[in-house]
Amino acid sequence: MHFADALTAKVRKISPVCVGLDPQMEKLPKGIRKDLEGMKTFCRGIMDAVQNLASCIKPNLAFFETLGWEGMKLFFELCSEAKERGFIVISDGKRSDIGNTAAAYAAAYLGVDKPIDALTVNAYLGSDGVSPFLRQCSEHDKGIFVLVKTSNASSGELQDLPVGDEMVHEHLSHLVESWGKDCLGMESKLSCVGAVVGAPYPEELKYLRTTMPHIPFLIPGYGAQGGTAREAALGFIPDGTGAIVNASRSIMYASAGEDWKEAAQHAAEAMAADLKEALNARKRDTNLQ
Amino acid sequence: MHFADALTAKVRKISPVCVGLDPQMEKLPKGIRKDLEGMKTFCRGIMDAVQNLASCIKPNLAFFETLGWEGMKLFFELCSEAKERGFIVISDGKRSDIGNTAAAYAAAYLGVDKPIDALTVNAYLGSDGVSPFLRQCSEHDKGIFVLVKTSNASSGELQDLPVGDEMVHEHLSHLVESWGKDCLGMESKLSCVGAVVGAPYPEELKYLRTTMPHIPFLIPGYGAQGGTAREAALGFIPDGTGAIVNASRSIMYASAGEDWKEAAQHAAEAMAADLKEALNARKRDTNLQ
Repeated sequence: MHFADALTAKVRKISPVCVGLDPQMEKLPKGIRKDLEGMKTFCRGIMDAVQNLASCIKPNLAFFETLGWEGMKLFFELCSEAKERGFIVISDGKRSDIGNTAAAYAAAYLGVDKPIDALTVNAYLGSDGVSPFLRQCSEHDKGIFVLVKTSNASSGELQDLPVGDEMVHEHLSHLVESWGKDCLGMESKLSCVGAVVGAPYPEELKYLRTTMPHIPFLIPGYGAQGGTAREAALGFIPDGTGAIVNASRSIMYASAGEDWKEAAQHAAEAMAADLKEALNARKRDTNLQ
Repeated sequence: MHFADALTAKVRKISPVCVGLDPQMEKLPKGIRKDLEGMKTFCRGIMDAVQNLASCIKPNLAFFETLGWEGMKLFFELCSEAKERGFIVISDGKRSDIGNTAAAYAAAYLGVDKPIDALTVNAYLGSDGVSPFLRQCSEHDKGIFVLVKTSNASSGELQDLPVGDEMVHEHLSHLVESWGKDCLGMESKLSCVGAVVGAPYPEELKYLRTTMPHIPFLIPGYGAQGGTAREAALGFIPDGTGAIVNASRSIMYASAGEDWKEAAQHAAEAMAADLKEALNARKRDTNLQ
């Protein structure tokens, strides 16, 4: 199934919640061994906790790479397990390169044999850095999310520079829409090319929804980074699809005690409810206008 | 020793040649087994061939990641071997993330226990995405090379957008100089923060040398990508240091036959001689002015 169709179906059926898997040895909760086996147990427990609450699992490669090749082995094992559990698996690698190097990254994470549905991509290198990923997406029903406006405080240093009447990230948003327009899902009418737009920037989120009408959004910055559900809701299309909202720390590390699994479940439930309410409120507002 | 001091000493002693290790199974030359063991043999042979001709070895992570965790194991093995042979080892990963995620990447590749001297970094996320790497650099004498103006054809799509009187990549060059100014080597007076500037853009290279006086350059795009030694020479400081020039394919795959090792050696010798001549010519031109 086309990536955006699969994503949309999951969002409708379950929720737009995406749970980031950012395992850090020093943060592992009470009762978990501080080693690779402990990390695996912990990540599997988080998947248990958010099953039927979250549609997507987003492991961030950095936390696995930092454990060396054993960490990469664990990364692929956890991706396989997340796929088997029915999650949409988004590998957060923010990869960027060109030509056959980008093709190597695309094969590494979006190859037909890989238990991963989508990869985050940094497009500072332009089209040359995106087209090799697009080939993999259209051949194997995979997706990418291009960093457009990131959730961090200093994201504006480059992304908000004024280019004529626009900012750099707005200019990029037109490129993203153009990269994605030939790869729309039959059901969702959304593209296999997505965009990362941070919840802490609601005005940008609202505007970018208009410049990228066919682009699914991955919205980070909810929870620990200060973004609210009402802000995140601005990145959705009116029917409540077209976006997923990520939380990592606020779910994984909801408790440092032995109740970490229940705490993660409650945090995911609360997040799903919070988003549902914000999306309903937005729907009412839209209907009233 | 401070990264830029070590780099400068190597450039003076050997050459500014950096050899990219981009192993691809389907390109392995005649007589080499098409498997991981063959790849290792091939990469070790390339290191043999360019020993005492190149100062740096730059493995590109994409080609190792595409082989899964076994590829990552090979990556670290080859980095260790390159370090033991006395090369400066630059991990080309173009990583980008923020906060503790960027810190995880920094630990993964620039940690005190890692056989790697520097990492390439994509700064689209701004200072938040660079400062965690800087901490690792100053604590452990490591370096980073920030992508400023890349060598590919579409690099201008974002990097050349006009921001007032400047282009985006020129604006970024001021940020890079500011990120690097507190981390200068005693000997070289150059920073642990470097910049990637492509040889196929000589005007940019010349201008960026003036906006980033303390920043060592990693210059890709020589050889297979069409950049010449005369163009690359514009990125050096007048004494012939301050930059390294990378070639990957034109050295690794100089021959597809059984003479691949000799061919790589000859290609590296020719490149070192070509750069030496261009740098001498530039020195003469500068003295005449």
